[in-house]
Amino acid sequence: MISQEISDKDYEIKVKDSFSRQNFMNTLGAKITKLGPGFCEISMPFQDSLTQQHHFIHAGAIGAIADSAAGYSAFTLSPPHSSVLTVEYKLNLLTPAKGEEFVARSRILPSGKKLKVAFCEVYAIENKQETLCAILTATVKIIQNKADLPL
Amino acid sequence: MISQEISDKDYEIKVKDSFSRQNFMNTLGAKITKLGPGFCEISMPFQDSLTQQHHFIHAGAIGAIADSAAGYSAFTLSPPHSSVLTVEYKLNLLTPAKGEEFVARSRILPSGKKLKVAFCEVYAIENKQETLCAILTATVKIIQNKADLPL
Amino acid sequence: MISQEISDKDYEIKVKDSFSRQNFMNTLGAKITKLGPGFCEISMPFQDSLTQQHHFIHAGAIGAIADSAAGYSAFTLSPPHSSVLTVEYKLNLLTPAKGEEFVARSRILPSGKKLKVAFCEVYAIENKQETLCAILTATVKIIQNKADLPL
Amino acid sequence: MISQEISDKDYEIKVKDSFSRQNFMNTLGAKITKLGPGFCEISMPFQDSLTQQHHFIHAGAIGAIADSAAGYSAFTLSPPHSSVLTVEYKLNLLTPAKGEEFVARSRILPSGKKLKVAFCEVYAIENKQETLCAILTATVKIIQNKADLPL
Repeated sequence: MISQEISDKDYEIKVKDSFSRQNFMNTLGAKITKLGPGFCEISMPFQDSLTQQHHFIHAGAIGAIADSAAGYSAFTLSPPHSSVLTVEYKLNLLTPAKGEEFVARSRILPSGKKLKVAFCEVYAIENKQETLCAILTATVKIIQNKADLPL
Repeated sequence: MISQEISDKDYEIKVKDSFSRQNFMNTLGAKITKLGPGFCEISMPFQDSLTQQHHFIHAGAIGAIADSAAGYSAFTLSPPHSSVLTVEYKLNLLTPAKGEEFVARSRILPSGKKLKVAFCEVYAIENKQETLCAILTATVKIIQNKADLPL
Repeated sequence: MISQEISDKDYEIKVKDSFSRQNFMNTLGAKITKLGPGFCEISMPFQDSLTQQHHFIHAGAIGAIADSAAGYSAFTLSPPHSSVLTVEYKLNLLTPAKGEEFVARSRILPSGKKLKVAFCEVYAIENKQETLCAILTATVKIIQNKADLPL
Repeated sequence: MISQEISDKDYEIKVKDSFSRQNFMNTLGAKITKLGPGFCEISMPFQDSLTQQHHFIHAGAIGAIADSAAGYSAFTLSPPHSSVLTVEYKLNLLTPAKGEEFVARSRILPSGKKLKVAFCEVYAIENKQETLCAILTATVKIIQNKADLPL
């Protein structure tokens, strides 16, 4: 029932191709900065266009990169010709998202083949110091036999 | 302990002023389209810049307008010289966010004075038909004696 | 993709039989008090054995009846020879769980065939007056071709 | 704003006294098995009275010990004459709760003074082997100047 192993040796190509089609990540200025089996890191620099009323990064933007990191950490473990879909996510905000850069690091916990559970930490980086500013837990569904192609 | 009543008759000015300083809502093309005591509706038209890999609206963008709607529905009930902060939110995605417009409607449930609980429904509108595509529950903190001013 | 209709006309027998095998519900003194397509109500009287340190009902007991109500509201919609499994749930506590009886009412929102999303309200009843004391959102998985039988 | 340090050197007495008044933990057969600054472990042996329909431990019982572990990990960091209250918790179930014993380990993440965020892992122990079966994230409120006394 539990599977953490890679079932697609070309997962890196698959993930990066899919990510490149997420226009919203481009809008956020977000990039995949690390990738491994069951792991994905997405980084997003501070931008004026992403702020809330106190000029911190909007919780919604933090949630968005954490959600994408969760989805792609699951996608690294999915078989060829599959795609991923977020079922739900929950974000706890620990401190105001203040910094020059924001890094979401998600890893897949031992879970099922079709439903993966991700745990993601988001760090704010200021003067090279990392502060944990949010955590996200998510359920990601693996849809088999349906490649993640452009529509 | 429980308070649903307005404690600031100028809540509308306060909310709209704060919202206008959320650059991220502007980036999303989102607007407040309805406001009442303990209620806030935010609408966001479809934009290419907000999509995920299947060209639906990214769950992160859905979460962002729902989070803002939650926060501002709480802000309508907060006293003068206060501000609001999202403590946590959880989003369940019911159907792919497919449509021409997306509308988040949040209302505050009977909860405490300092911690408000919001329940938000997000509808996708396609050919004038509304489909519930996501729900969000959130905890919003009211920070008293600290006006929601620009930094 | 979306299905709210009954696919098993004997859902009531199925649900009640499964519930009767949930020893934990018996330990809590909980009973199904209403059932319909996509709906389940579970009631639990106050008991000393269920309290937390301030002699209110423990949040864990509230979560337990809400989780069961969520699962069984999904089970009413599942096909014959299937079973249900909670994937995740989130509970927001609105007021202390103070009262003589606690009633969890769950309904299934329009969602997928295999993954149902439930929204559950929990009311505390005191002197015949109902107070909303908690809300729960849950994802419930329908496992097809595997009847909900005793092991 | 962030505080992880102990502000009550007698936190162990305070926590254990409060726990002993949680009748529900006694009903579950649960005990505190480890305690430290910002950390709490609660263990619960398998009991027939705690099962769901497939004779695994009910998700509600898992959620209950994880919630208590979250609350008491926060309580270790609270000042004298204070009490704690769970605001919300979310449980993701990774595998069926099958085993002889269940151990919830919660630690407080760097968060605010009045609102603590806990991350809790629940392990099922079978033949001396631990399997992560659930994770919980929770928000716990510290209520100052109100000792956690019996009512």
